[in-house]
Amino acid sequence: MRILITGASGFVGRAFITALGDEHEIVAFDSASNPYSDGSIRYIQGDLADPALLDEACSDRVDALVHLATVPGGAAEQDPNHAFAVNIDATAALLDRITSAEAPPRVLFASSIAVFGDPLPTYVDDATPIQPRMVYGAHKAMIEQWIATLTRRGEIEGLSLRFPGIIARPKGPSGMKSAFMSDVFHAAAARQGFVSPVSAEATLWLMSVSGLVRNLVHALKAPTALFAEPYALTLPSVRTSFGALVLELARQTGADPSLVRYDPDAALESAFGRQPPLATPAADVAGFRHDGSLEALVTSALNSLQ
Amino acid sequence: MRILITGASGFVGRAFITALGDEHEIVAFDSASNPYSDGSIRYIQGDLADPALLDEACSDRVDALVHLATVPGGAAEQDPNHAFAVNIDATAALLDRITSAEAPPRVLFASSIAVFGDPLPTYVDDATPIQPRMVYGAHKAMIEQWIATLTRRGEIEGLSLRFPGIIARPKGPSGMKSAFMSDVFHAAAARQGFVSPVSAEATLWLMSVSGLVRNLVHALKAPTALFAEPYALTLPSVRTSFGALVLELARQTGADPSLVRYDPDAALESAFGRQPPLATPAADVAGFRHDGSLEALVTSALNSLQ
Repeated sequence: MRILITGASGFVGRAFITALGDEHEIVAFDSASNPYSDGSIRYIQGDLADPALLDEACSDRVDALVHLATVPGGAAEQDPNHAFAVNIDATAALLDRITSAEAPPRVLFASSIAVFGDPLPTYVDDATPIQPRMVYGAHKAMIEQWIATLTRRGEIEGLSLRFPGIIARPKGPSGMKSAFMSDVFHAAAARQGFVSPVSAEATLWLMSVSGLVRNLVHALKAPTALFAEPYALTLPSVRTSFGALVLELARQTGADPSLVRYDPDAALESAFGRQPPLATPAADVAGFRHDGSLEALVTSALNSLQ
Repeated sequence: MRILITGASGFVGRAFITALGDEHEIVAFDSASNPYSDGSIRYIQGDLADPALLDEACSDRVDALVHLATVPGGAAEQDPNHAFAVNIDATAALLDRITSAEAPPRVLFASSIAVFGDPLPTYVDDATPIQPRMVYGAHKAMIEQWIATLTRRGEIEGLSLRFPGIIARPKGPSGMKSAFMSDVFHAAAARQGFVSPVSAEATLWLMSVSGLVRNLVHALKAPTALFAEPYALTLPSVRTSFGALVLELARQTGADPSLVRYDPDAALESAFGRQPPLATPAADVAGFRHDGSLEALVTSALNSLQ
């Protein structure tokens, strides 16, 4: 199976490609330089909005596409038109190149809980309406719609998976407003002070990158029956307060929890710190899983630090 | 109030501009040549996908946008990439030029019952999921999402109105798969034979162009409270069988109903001939109205023939 992976050099892309091992032919696409020493991985470096590179990536038949590349939340707010060019136009152009009525390729699209918007209702489940407020969330919702339509038409076999906060991403600028969820792990591991932009009472939906990769592999290998209306699933996640996360992190790393000081930012608290109880029955029935417990989530996220 | 109207030379655009009278400043945009003798209407002819023309259309502040221009169903299926360029990219570029946090312009977007896809469920109401199958319907659903997001952000005051079949459009190629709904009016008025591509039992949701214009004017002048989640409304319509429509048309025109011969096309029957009972409580409460009866619908549509 030839698998095209966009955002292949991101922390999710790298963990996913590692998990796939060598039983597939991998075409990796990213704007960053090639992080892979494995010469069997075909690497295409450049802008997803470049039609010639899309042609190159799709020059051979694509059996599966895992579309992780995106202009994320904070960056999309800064430059909505660039975000539109990548998140909407380039994504549609990529899908256009791989549709096949004869043998529809499997497509996994990295959507986001940002489609629900903010403030969230007091409870979220599979019937919660899609009401994005951020540019990023709207783009995800629009492409969910397009992926579902192409799937109904039999041109792809698509599924949008709404990712919760994925931890722990590497240090450094990511364009993600939610980077603080990962940064606290790096601080704890290094026993450094950390100023939290959300309160200890802030509640978050989280999944470790290893947990996410297991879910992606599950979707990639699942029977066709997994791909059903509405072709979009909210992934399950561990829901925790930020304070409880800090305490568990301190327990596992031996760091002093008082190294974390709380200085909530109203906008971040509203956008990321009021995630209510979540039910994901459709994803649960389809075999998608969260990390199991706060303890397991923190252990897994610490193991992924690089 | 300065009102920008796209698709201004279409049959809906012309009826709408006529209804507006001379109390507003009108900027009319269309790819067709100027049908207006009224020199007070500023007319811009060209491709909506031309950024320079969008700049020109939006060079002065736009108080309201009525966005009727679209690559419709049949044409979008023929050339999905061109349809994407107009229905998605040009629409987003147009919206981008008029957003204003200080004084958000009112935006009415011509969406379509095509967002519900086909086959339709046995009953449609405001809780029916959006499941487009046609390219056209998917594009409408995607822009509904974008209009709602911009409205949540306070950058526009937007509302998507899902049009049913609007009758009677002028004769001639329209790119609409649903043109037969209007063509039967022209045939009856001219006492010519007509081969119907749907059966006499086919059921349709219809509104006269005059009825639609009344609803557009209502939305344009309504208080802000009309603009509420989910910022998209399915318009009410008269539901009729095609056979009953033909008989009423014969009664009002004096044409012989046997001039209509039924030769159903399976795809058209499926896409347009299985419209089930429809409830539109959100639009009803907001003051939107259908034509009232089959008799009134046919009278109004006959009056609009040109």
